[in-house]
Amino acid sequence: MSDLTPSLDPGSPLPLYEQLYRSISRDIIMGRIQGGTRLPSRRALSRHLGISEQTISNAYALLKAEGFISAKARSGLFVERMLPLTEAPVHPAPHKEKDEALIRFDLLPQSTDISLFPRKLWARLMREALLDEPDLMKRGDPRGEHSLRAALCAFLYQFRGVQTTFEQMVIASGVDQLLLAICALFNRPLRIACEDPGYTEAARVIRRAGHTPVPLPLDEHGIRIDTLMKEDVDLVYITPAHQFPTGISMPASRRAELLHWAQERTGRYLIEDDYDSEFRYATRPLPALQSLDATGKVIYLSTFSRSLAPGLRIAYMALPKELSEAYTKTGLRSGETVTRFEQHTMARFIQEGHYTRHLRRAGNRYQKRCEQLCALLSQIPGSFLSGQEAGLHFLFGIKGRTEKDLLQKAADRHIPLQGLQGFCQDVHLMPALVMGFGGLEDEQVEEAVALLRMAWSV
Amino acid sequence: MSDLTPSLDPGSPLPLYEQLYRSISRDIIMGRIQGGTRLPSRRALSRHLGISEQTISNAYALLKAEGFISAKARSGLFVERMLPLTEAPVHPAPHKEKDEALIRFDLLPQSTDISLFPRKLWARLMREALLDEPDLMKRGDPRGEHSLRAALCAFLYQFRGVQTTFEQMVIASGVDQLLLAICALFNRPLRIACEDPGYTEAARVIRRAGHTPVPLPLDEHGIRIDTLMKEDVDLVYITPAHQFPTGISMPASRRAELLHWAQERTGRYLIEDDYDSEFRYATRPLPALQSLDATGKVIYLSTFSRSLAPGLRIAYMALPKELSEAYTKTGLRSGETVTRFEQHTMARFIQEGHYTRHLRRAGNRYQKRCEQLCALLSQIPGSFLSGQEAGLHFLFGIKGRTEKDLLQKAADRHIPLQGLQGFCQDVHLMPALVMGFGGLEDEQVEEAVALLRMAWSV
Repeated sequence: MSDLTPSLDPGSPLPLYEQLYRSISRDIIMGRIQGGTRLPSRRALSRHLGISEQTISNAYALLKAEGFISAKARSGLFVERMLPLTEAPVHPAPHKEKDEALIRFDLLPQSTDISLFPRKLWARLMREALLDEPDLMKRGDPRGEHSLRAALCAFLYQFRGVQTTFEQMVIASGVDQLLLAICALFNRPLRIACEDPGYTEAARVIRRAGHTPVPLPLDEHGIRIDTLMKEDVDLVYITPAHQFPTGISMPASRRAELLHWAQERTGRYLIEDDYDSEFRYATRPLPALQSLDATGKVIYLSTFSRSLAPGLRIAYMALPKELSEAYTKTGLRSGETVTRFEQHTMARFIQEGHYTRHLRRAGNRYQKRCEQLCALLSQIPGSFLSGQEAGLHFLFGIKGRTEKDLLQKAADRHIPLQGLQGFCQDVHLMPALVMGFGGLEDEQVEEAVALLRMAWSV
Repeated sequence: MSDLTPSLDPGSPLPLYEQLYRSISRDIIMGRIQGGTRLPSRRALSRHLGISEQTISNAYALLKAEGFISAKARSGLFVERMLPLTEAPVHPAPHKEKDEALIRFDLLPQSTDISLFPRKLWARLMREALLDEPDLMKRGDPRGEHSLRAALCAFLYQFRGVQTTFEQMVIASGVDQLLLAICALFNRPLRIACEDPGYTEAARVIRRAGHTPVPLPLDEHGIRIDTLMKEDVDLVYITPAHQFPTGISMPASRRAELLHWAQERTGRYLIEDDYDSEFRYATRPLPALQSLDATGKVIYLSTFSRSLAPGLRIAYMALPKELSEAYTKTGLRSGETVTRFEQHTMARFIQEGHYTRHLRRAGNRYQKRCEQLCALLSQIPGSFLSGQEAGLHFLFGIKGRTEKDLLQKAADRHIPLQGLQGFCQDVHLMPALVMGFGGLEDEQVEEAVALLRMAWSV
């Protein structure tokens, strides 16, 4: 066994015994040392390699603990017989740093103004949660923190007219997680109607969960009832407050029709995604569709991604009683997808009124920015806008210009934009851009429009 | 319309116009006010109700904005025609506080010693992340923070022998999230072998994702190859370092056999869950199975729930190159399930060496506690223990006593325990308890055993 000559690197971060262990174990795995071979004694190998006997002992101990070698009484250590494997690379590949693209303005619909997020306050609340409540380090409630669910329940009743109890609330790290949980509440393959155009990620999540998304077209009031009637679907996923991406606000009559559809058959539910209802500029936010529902047919869900910041991963839903009980039975644990002291911090943020203060401040800021941006864009000959009464995005287009053309020319000036077609499944709508202004700085508005006009030569 | 007499409550948190709006809209929805009805003028209603015209105007504005009413030129406001709905409860049910059960000792396998978590340090790092890096409020990388993935990559190579690159790493809010992501990497229904007994939640998650968990029995070296060979499965989910719940540590020979099985056919992979490998008492942690693999057949995943705290929701996995590319293609976004500044905090916690220091401290503490507990339990006549060389739990039983009996008698003394059968799918093993000591305080060990002996009258 004097052929046992591992490459030991004193400069390596790994201790010698670890290097020796890895070298010998690799030789065994690769079949370079046959099963049944007797290993050299510690003293012999220590002389052979010029390293301490203790180092050898440590390495041998590991090999033994892992079952690479075994001791035979009074005859030493022997290599186990095992199937040879192919060589593994000794070192991991070096880390490449991903270089960010140069972006001059953020006009993407999912962006928000992060400068509005009260970071100091948040840090203080979180520090207090961490130091005052060690138990938050233990495993949490599978629905999420009681404190947060109760705070949301009160907030949603006052600001969105949502009628629910904190028992029916569920917390998760995002709307996707909530949709997965909803799908898991039914023990059958589901057909779920989605708005087309709509939040395409929802359809993707539904498909991933093994269910079937059914894209349905919109009219000026939102998802069309006549096509819905024709389809055999169980759930309908909608964004009534400010349809994504068209910005349509669903009138009460259509809401009533949808509720009627749901009430016609057991097992039918409406999923109301209220993602950006906190911001409305014409009037104050419309009450939620859920507030019209007495029959437990509406699953209300929303997130803090728009109202606070996309980097903050907390979403929530209010389940109808029946489904709330199903949630408990199925043993779902969506609430465990958000770190507890973060949930606790959010609970205090809401309870102490910081959240509503933030919404007022942010709302005013966004409204001004939206008005300024729309005013400038509407000066472009042939331009049209819609859906700018609420939320953080609106539709914008120029008569006679294709989406592809507008997108490409903006991209050439390093202004990434999103087109309406990108959110369409089967339908084809007039060419338009889904313009977000959440991530745009107030000082940038004029410059951004100027640059766009230059890019589009209008 | 003098019958329009809403119940307005000046004591309510809702402004009067909001109450008026809700009352009228409800009357319209319920059909108590017919479609086509003309609403009283602002002045008339203000006299009728004795509230300001401004309040009426605000309420009417909302009703109009929502499409409950519409204006006809020179003839006033008229109620829209819509389908009537059934009444909704006006107030949400009161919040009930859930009362915690009186628990004297925590001997559950998933618990950890939260007093070991460096809360002050964590709060400081998080505060710094919040204040120094405002961009962490923006949307993050769908795989998770670069900094955390790089830090984990280096840590895993040094401490677990895992060979990967930060591009192949994925962050998520829990092992469940990672399993869901793994399932989504394959465009076909999967059959995934699971250990029986094993981490039953994994099987549940797999089933929920629309795939088939295939429970396979264990022998003294872990999951049995002969039964695996007979089954037509794509993936195998295993816990080689310290099998959950039996505590078996898989020897190198069995690891080699599993790798061989995976290499025999394309599309076969091993999912290595390394959940509590950080704590090993006989020798230092065994290198991961992934470190033996040169052919990209092992998906390595682990979590901070055991090593730091269950309340902290961060898990991670290293994907083989092929699957790592699939992850990008499928547009998965598991990394977005964890708030970014929390990921960033964890990255610094690891990079600055706090994590390894914590593991050393915690390891020593757990080892002492484990030894003390085992010593006391082994004094019980007919008692047997196994799997106590690593992790935060071991198997314990008393010859001639059933699980049900031991569990029940402990529960009577307010000591919740978990039995081995609770983690079994098809197999039936000797009666044993899965004893956790992570959540037990050092001072409680003697008292806990004394109380258990009393409960079991041994």
